[in-house]
Amino acid sequence: MRVGIIGASGYTGLELLRLLALRPQTEVAFVTSRQDAGTPLTTFFPSLAGHPQYDRLIMEKPDNLSGRADFIFLATQHGVAMNLAPALLESGARVIDLSADFRLKTAELFQTWYEEHKAPQLLGEAVYGLPELYRERIARARLVANPGCYPTSIILALAPLLRHGLVDLSRPIIADSKSGVTGAGRTLARGNTFCEVQENFKAYKVVGHRHTPEIVQELSILADEPVSLSFTPHLLPINRGILSTIYISLREPLGVPAFRAIYRDFYINDPYVRIRPEGYAPETADVRGTNFCDLGFFPESSTGLWKIISVIDNICRGASGQAIANLNVMANCPEDMGLTGMSLRP
Amino acid sequence: MRVGIIGASGYTGLELLRLLALRPQTEVAFVTSRQDAGTPLTTFFPSLAGHPQYDRLIMEKPDNLSGRADFIFLATQHGVAMNLAPALLESGARVIDLSADFRLKTAELFQTWYEEHKAPQLLGEAVYGLPELYRERIARARLVANPGCYPTSIILALAPLLRHGLVDLSRPIIADSKSGVTGAGRTLARGNTFCEVQENFKAYKVVGHRHTPEIVQELSILADEPVSLSFTPHLLPINRGILSTIYISLREPLGVPAFRAIYRDFYINDPYVRIRPEGYAPETADVRGTNFCDLGFFPESSTGLWKIISVIDNICRGASGQAIANLNVMANCPEDMGLTGMSLRP
Amino acid sequence: MRVGIIGASGYTGLELLRLLALRPQTEVAFVTSRQDAGTPLTTFFPSLAGHPQYDRLIMEKPDNLSGRADFIFLATQHGVAMNLAPALLESGARVIDLSADFRLKTAELFQTWYEEHKAPQLLGEAVYGLPELYRERIARARLVANPGCYPTSIILALAPLLRHGLVDLSRPIIADSKSGVTGAGRTLARGNTFCEVQENFKAYKVVGHRHTPEIVQELSILADEPVSLSFTPHLLPINRGILSTIYISLREPLGVPAFRAIYRDFYINDPYVRIRPEGYAPETADVRGTNFCDLGFFPESSTGLWKIISVIDNICRGASGQAIANLNVMANCPEDMGLTGMSLRP
Amino acid sequence: MRVGIIGASGYTGLELLRLLALRPQTEVAFVTSRQDAGTPLTTFFPSLAGHPQYDRLIMEKPDNLSGRADFIFLATQHGVAMNLAPALLESGARVIDLSADFRLKTAELFQTWYEEHKAPQLLGEAVYGLPELYRERIARARLVANPGCYPTSIILALAPLLRHGLVDLSRPIIADSKSGVTGAGRTLARGNTFCEVQENFKAYKVVGHRHTPEIVQELSILADEPVSLSFTPHLLPINRGILSTIYISLREPLGVPAFRAIYRDFYINDPYVRIRPEGYAPETADVRGTNFCDLGFFPESSTGLWKIISVIDNICRGASGQAIANLNVMANCPEDMGLTGMSLRP
Repeated sequence: MRVGIIGASGYTGLELLRLLALRPQTEVAFVTSRQDAGTPLTTFFPSLAGHPQYDRLIMEKPDNLSGRADFIFLATQHGVAMNLAPALLESGARVIDLSADFRLKTAELFQTWYEEHKAPQLLGEAVYGLPELYRERIARARLVANPGCYPTSIILALAPLLRHGLVDLSRPIIADSKSGVTGAGRTLARGNTFCEVQENFKAYKVVGHRHTPEIVQELSILADEPVSLSFTPHLLPINRGILSTIYISLREPLGVPAFRAIYRDFYINDPYVRIRPEGYAPETADVRGTNFCDLGFFPESSTGLWKIISVIDNICRGASGQAIANLNVMANCPEDMGLTGMSLRP
Repeated sequence: MRVGIIGASGYTGLELLRLLALRPQTEVAFVTSRQDAGTPLTTFFPSLAGHPQYDRLIMEKPDNLSGRADFIFLATQHGVAMNLAPALLESGARVIDLSADFRLKTAELFQTWYEEHKAPQLLGEAVYGLPELYRERIARARLVANPGCYPTSIILALAPLLRHGLVDLSRPIIADSKSGVTGAGRTLARGNTFCEVQENFKAYKVVGHRHTPEIVQELSILADEPVSLSFTPHLLPINRGILSTIYISLREPLGVPAFRAIYRDFYINDPYVRIRPEGYAPETADVRGTNFCDLGFFPESSTGLWKIISVIDNICRGASGQAIANLNVMANCPEDMGLTGMSLRP
Repeated sequence: MRVGIIGASGYTGLELLRLLALRPQTEVAFVTSRQDAGTPLTTFFPSLAGHPQYDRLIMEKPDNLSGRADFIFLATQHGVAMNLAPALLESGARVIDLSADFRLKTAELFQTWYEEHKAPQLLGEAVYGLPELYRERIARARLVANPGCYPTSIILALAPLLRHGLVDLSRPIIADSKSGVTGAGRTLARGNTFCEVQENFKAYKVVGHRHTPEIVQELSILADEPVSLSFTPHLLPINRGILSTIYISLREPLGVPAFRAIYRDFYINDPYVRIRPEGYAPETADVRGTNFCDLGFFPESSTGLWKIISVIDNICRGASGQAIANLNVMANCPEDMGLTGMSLRP
Repeated sequence: MRVGIIGASGYTGLELLRLLALRPQTEVAFVTSRQDAGTPLTTFFPSLAGHPQYDRLIMEKPDNLSGRADFIFLATQHGVAMNLAPALLESGARVIDLSADFRLKTAELFQTWYEEHKAPQLLGEAVYGLPELYRERIARARLVANPGCYPTSIILALAPLLRHGLVDLSRPIIADSKSGVTGAGRTLARGNTFCEVQENFKAYKVVGHRHTPEIVQELSILADEPVSLSFTPHLLPINRGILSTIYISLREPLGVPAFRAIYRDFYINDPYVRIRPEGYAPETADVRGTNFCDLGFFPESSTGLWKIISVIDNICRGASGQAIANLNVMANCPEDMGLTGMSLRP
């Protein structure tokens, strides 16, 4: 299988390459970076040196890619993929877009939160790339919109309950999320410098983070009615990991065994969702470098609420790992092909 | 002024000594540690070397302390202070207890969450040491129960609204709190080792953390009716800092200026509460090493909720700094005496 | 191939399991921990959950192991392996000892630095498990003494020059090494708590660290004369990684191309040693989670010295990864079988 | 006393303001930042809010400063101070320059390592601002060149031995130094982003770091002969702190008591140099936020070398704290005025 990566100079590009090195029978046909074209890949990312394929790759301009790969990852910032995708699809490649460009269902919604959409004709065709929810559609898709990191952690935590109509939606669902710094990508910004992050913790975009409409869209599809969500992202002084603490009320009381059974049944065929033992609070280090999403459930008798804790590796499960899972589904390979590594812990 | 510290071998003891070094006209008359009696203080805590008073102090057994200090800090673990306080008070000293022993109002409640209380006769007399709420009673107190770190961050964030009866109490208040590792003290435990914390994040005691009754007690006093609280503590890979993200509904809609005015008026005479500018999300590094509590307010139109963000240094404002503020109030000194340092940032 | 791990409750045990999960056709036949016998492996190490083999393993007492594995890893603290190895070898298993017990050539030297040796009869047979130096002897060994982490980083950095007799040995070689905290293992100790390590840096065992005789032994064998070494270990606030900065004088001046050629030739068949491009200073993150040793060389004209910088992952290349490389050599498999992952970076 | 800060938008500016807040009778008359002129200081640095003086300050352009301050700190990058200093001195202010512009004794040397010098006429007059060495000249100086951070840690570690002619200078002194990230200032650069530094460690500018000539100059003055120095800087994943491990040979053997006595006598009147007890290895956390330089000495019998370990807070003792110590000396105030705080540890 030949794959290509457009926008390989960011952290999601690097993570794709780390993971693809472990995937059998995979040829990385090209890596592109408009800004760094001409640079050998291992000069740009010295940690990739020593791998026979990578030692030969040179960063290219994203031109003349036609026919060179069966699957193309778009690892660019939002706003770029929607310009490139139409031609790539026309050339016969199947595309997995890691940016936000094809996640929202309508051009209007995209424009409200981002900018004018340049390829609205593809929005209906693009499949939201969460295999647990859309595996069959992903298998047939030409264009997969790889989910955002926060959305992945929150949607997987709520899908079984919402699908079964168990959540009291008369009040907002609260999702208090904490992310490592790779979530911000490799772009230089004051807020991502070591001295601003180390020994510090803060919320950011406290209201109106751009992942909100994507989460609301998917939760509402699952519930088959509008869902109100209060989402707050925070910045953790770690490289990798998202932990979402989610507070919900149920329509009717549910015992712990029944509650857990709903999740076990829903994810019975999903190798990457781990229902944690009762009382165990998932930790981000448990999933570092993996495609797992770990879930823990905590009923609180004094308030009647349930707390759901969800952890993923934001750059693996929340981006590049999930992209490769989607590749596996699209290519009719085992879904965990190349993704069987356990957490690098500690 | 002569002060003494019982249980000086922990991090709150160390922080008391750091802060007292900056307080004028303060003599540290003794430091005790049953386990480390006989050790010179600066052998135990080398960072304190070079300070003339500290270079002479030797850790003592907590015996024969009578008459040697006007104010005594109890920096021991819970369960110890209630055994020591009666005799110390009888000897004429005034006592500031940094443990949980005198924070709850009834022996029954204490027994439910901790163990049998050994000095229940003092519970009625002990004053909860949050100067913003109880300044006048603290000034006259013989025994001050220094608040917990999580409670300080949450109570200060909610006091003005609750006192004015503005919060919709028909549903639980949600407080999602994140703390640095000093909050766990200096005791050895697997969960506090570097390799378990670094590049990791988790919730712990997801339901039923022992600070819950203390917070509920004070919030209910402020509201003058029972308050339901869903509190979740998390462990941050930093030394110092607590950030609490609090989600509330108001009984009636309130504009931003009116909301902010309520806080400004409530804390008008309080040097340590900083109402942050609109849109600024408080960061733990802003308060590192200080007695400040910084507050930020975020209305969310899509859900109708308000998010309140509160940050403190858990071991300064949440323990030793607050203890010295209480000392200042008790001794009729300026409340910020010895506490005027700005944050060590970065 | 059936392998077993004795002393699986430490970090080297966990790392062995992480790596073995990626190794094809490998059955982990047993894991032992005297203290935690009876605990399911994934209860002890939740990050290993979801792996079919590991989900079934239970920690055992290290008894009744005879005939159950072809290769046994001893991942215990020093002093334990020398008691267990004789019986394990007698039972027909081949043994890879990750502790210090069989690294020194004489019982006298071991007693000077550790304690009385309990199996001195095996010291002559044990092979020092550095594949780059002893590949052929490892292939035939019954008992391999897996090198220490500091020794691995320093010996690989110096072997080519010493073998060629190029270093001026009239003055001490200086090796200034810095290690992550996993190097101290999983044992509880004040110095390994988060609050003592975070935002801190220190040297420890400044003179006389126990890895010194092991390094001196191997350097002297390479040089075929006694080598004087000044070795200083430091503790980095990171989980994984050792960087050694080594200062040497050459007997005769050597140009950069000639110097580099000596290393390239020496390591021509070694997949894990990466000679870095001129001017590139190796970083510990480049080798995180891998078996690579990266080397950089810097001539300093103003002093006439050469600086050699060497980085490894102390718990992978410096312990468990190297143990699996030794397993591969002993089993006549490709040396990098199961070890082809690239660095988890960032 | 009226002081002003030119270039207040960097971390040394922030640290000056943190420290000046604790200094009695000090008025910060102005803060400048050409780029951020017009911004209220506490908008720029929210951690400074709540301080009466700072709440009123607005960042200015560095014009029209004449007569507004008795002492002016130049906290700009190198290359700026040499353009501003002449006019500031002419206006009657006394100047403490935290940059490199006036540290080297000749314009030629400056040009070799930096660029053409714009105020060479001041190089003879500028006093190197290390109070332990030049206290009396600092007291009378108009222009003080505040030392670099690495030089401070290395010069203080070697001054007593060199002044007494005890070091064998026939071979290079080796200084292996490790610094926190604040040493790189507040400028945006890839290498200072969190994801590149966290869980990483590396050397940088392995040969020819710009602090080398400054260190060599001062060591040679102390020794009264040319000193050869091999200096290697490394980047620690911490905010603050430098630890230098220094390797020397003595001309003649010296016992530990005699060695230690030389240091004690040399620094007998210096409040900021702490000679650590035998066997104690200084830690950067011991000096965090303080002006201390802690020294430890370790003879190594197997090699005949001495190892000297020196720690400072690079941004306090290595920059802003030392600048205020110089201010104190220049103003004939107690040298530790405003600098008596103990380390913020943990």
